[in-house]
Amino acid sequence: MFSVTVRDFIMIAHSLRGEVFGPAQNLHGATYTVDLEFRRAQLDANGIVIDIGLALDFLHEVLQPLKYQNLDDLAVFQGVNTTTEVIAKYIFDRMADHLRASPGVTVGEDGVQAMKVTLIESPNAWAAYEGTLGAA
Amino acid sequence: MFSVTVRDFIMIAHSLRGEVFGPAQNLHGATYTVDLEFRRAQLDANGIVIDIGLALDFLHEVLQPLKYQNLDDLAVFQGVNTTTEVIAKYIFDRMADHLRASPGVTVGEDGVQAMKVTLIESPNAWAAYEGTLGAA
Amino acid sequence: MFSVTVRDFIMIAHSLRGEVFGPAQNLHGATYTVDLEFRRAQLDANGIVIDIGLALDFLHEVLQPLKYQNLDDLAVFQGVNTTTEVIAKYIFDRMADHLRASPGVTVGEDGVQAMKVTLIESPNAWAAYEGTLGAA
Amino acid sequence: MFSVTVRDFIMIAHSLRGEVFGPAQNLHGATYTVDLEFRRAQLDANGIVIDIGLALDFLHEVLQPLKYQNLDDLAVFQGVNTTTEVIAKYIFDRMADHLRASPGVTVGEDGVQAMKVTLIESPNAWAAYEGTLGAA
Amino acid sequence: MFSVTVRDFIMIAHSLRGEVFGPAQNLHGATYTVDLEFRRAQLDANGIVIDIGLALDFLHEVLQPLKYQNLDDLAVFQGVNTTTEVIAKYIFDRMADHLRASPGVTVGEDGVQAMKVTLIESPNAWAAYEGTLGAA
Amino acid sequence: MFSVTVRDFIMIAHSLRGEVFGPAQNLHGATYTVDLEFRRAQLDANGIVIDIGLALDFLHEVLQPLKYQNLDDLAVFQGVNTTTEVIAKYIFDRMADHLRASPGVTVGEDGVQAMKVTLIESPNAWAAYEGTLGAA
Repeated sequence: MFSVTVRDFIMIAHSLRGEVFGPAQNLHGATYTVDLEFRRAQLDANGIVIDIGLALDFLHEVLQPLKYQNLDDLAVFQGVNTTTEVIAKYIFDRMADHLRASPGVTVGEDGVQAMKVTLIESPNAWAAYEGTLGAA
Repeated sequence: MFSVTVRDFIMIAHSLRGEVFGPAQNLHGATYTVDLEFRRAQLDANGIVIDIGLALDFLHEVLQPLKYQNLDDLAVFQGVNTTTEVIAKYIFDRMADHLRASPGVTVGEDGVQAMKVTLIESPNAWAAYEGTLGAA
Repeated sequence: MFSVTVRDFIMIAHSLRGEVFGPAQNLHGATYTVDLEFRRAQLDANGIVIDIGLALDFLHEVLQPLKYQNLDDLAVFQGVNTTTEVIAKYIFDRMADHLRASPGVTVGEDGVQAMKVTLIESPNAWAAYEGTLGAA
Repeated sequence: MFSVTVRDFIMIAHSLRGEVFGPAQNLHGATYTVDLEFRRAQLDANGIVIDIGLALDFLHEVLQPLKYQNLDDLAVFQGVNTTTEVIAKYIFDRMADHLRASPGVTVGEDGVQAMKVTLIESPNAWAAYEGTLGAA
Repeated sequence: MFSVTVRDFIMIAHSLRGEVFGPAQNLHGATYTVDLEFRRAQLDANGIVIDIGLALDFLHEVLQPLKYQNLDDLAVFQGVNTTTEVIAKYIFDRMADHLRASPGVTVGEDGVQAMKVTLIESPNAWAAYEGTLGAA
Repeated sequence: MFSVTVRDFIMIAHSLRGEVFGPAQNLHGATYTVDLEFRRAQLDANGIVIDIGLALDFLHEVLQPLKYQNLDDLAVFQGVNTTTEVIAKYIFDRMADHLRASPGVTVGEDGVQAMKVTLIESPNAWAAYEGTLGAA
């Protein structure tokens, strides 16, 4: 299995609901360093999983609506606890959509067949979501 | 699959038995940066794998008996080579016990179903143990 | 010159006023990894600049009022742009006060005579404030 | 599953063929930080996956023919696009050969049964190849 | 003293002349992670040393002519050994020119009065050049 | 001012005397990542502060007597608290001796005129010693 991972980041405000979160129930914020890993079993004709420059552009586009936002105010997160895990899954889903809408990219068994999104929230904590990509 | 990873560290002395270890047969020491990853297939009702603050507390408690110790003197390691791999497995087992003894934590298929313990011993070497958690 | 540096972090929300800040004028947030360096010309009788455990405790105490806060709501920052540089200086000043109020710590020429506070706000940007500590 | 990972690096020149690579079609270069992970299900009699000192020596030997080279000039890469992914696979194959030729190392189900090679090419991009090792 | 540091990188080919360089006399390459620190004694009216977004743009512009190049072919480096130290100084000088040509930036005692350029060439080596900026 | 920094590490056991050290009074250990910075005002005829390969060799030689040792047993540290600060100063002094004994290296105003030794002992603490080098 081959993989390529690219890194970008977002700086957001948000609050969490639930006693388990303690002081993180306050409106606070985070820099999330976002590592997006693309996996495929065989390289394409250029000898790559995905072009690194293209992958960085894709990640930039997917993160753009989140950059410098208060997640509590975004329609897409109404009624949702924007935990690190939930944001990781959200970025995964948006990138899956983005890949499928990109003419030059093959998704599924013959192409990018899985991804992993890791969000580093502090020097001592990070969370991730990984999953496969159906061809659809 | 979702995961959350938290980081802590221990500073210990020990010696290794066996010619393969060369100078590490001497009594020497290490700072082990310890990354503990918790995995579950579905998030809980709060939208998390495990609360990051709780996970950091758990890791702190599990590491406490090792902090600032000479592992050669600890009863639990008598007759055992305390290689980085062995310590990783030891921490994995202690954390599994700790999770199972924690009322608010679900272990197994419907909860935390796997873990990975990574010990970074120097800028150019680290070791890990990962495994699943039966419901027990 | 000797130095000891300890690391902690804060996760805060805030907004910045001024066109130069572009999208950072929105309410957003940051994880600031905080590195606090203590400097002295000669070590004390124990052979240290400051005990690392004590330094970590001090940093924790100084950062406590900022952790999980919206800086826009804090009285101390009213009318102030809470840029990374400004927060670094604020932490410097609070730590200077803290050191001077700590009976076992010597501040000034015969003790801790300078400090540097570095705030890492993303993988590609950080800011710092450094200065000397008068004895008084 | 246990693993041990060791780190070394190479500094090489190369160029890539294909419009997708944009400016990387120029002769340019890279420092590749190389992380090589060895995996086995059970530890050996010494309580290790592989001795870390030995693993570092092995990695050094495998990387030696690439260090300070222009990959465009090496016979082994003629007609091949030396993308990060391709170099990762090449190092994987050379290390597999090296392990099989080393008398004290067991390869396959009862020994080192899988490896992962990660090449970090910049602060925001890396690529990897991982696979199993047949006993052969 | 306040400072702001921003990070970018270049991937270049080059060769060095002189027996002291051993195998680095070959045409090879490097990823240089470039950290550029701007220093000023007092913050400006916005409470900053320099806007971080602007600083990242400036660094990107200054590095652009070096990205994906063979330094041996660039007119500006003819007859010069492009050691890490020399490239650091070159970037320092180009950034100094760039700052002085930027209408909104004050250079010298009342503004950005010093800079430091650090180039990280591998996990275990980096070089830097630092100096003051005259007003001129 | 130019600088070159190289990195190596040591893994040692030791204990500290004095109540201030709390649990670190036990025999324990540490991995110290050692960063040695060499500074000079002007580059030499090769365009360098010191050859990076040579600097790595020098650091390796200076650290060799400490690697995999119990510092409590070494004659040179009898009656000394081997705090991180003290070890940093010790390495500084040994490297200064080493430079002065190396025929091809110029020490003092026309050559390597200052050094800084940083020892990273954990993910959240490090210490350093820096000083100038007389020509002697």
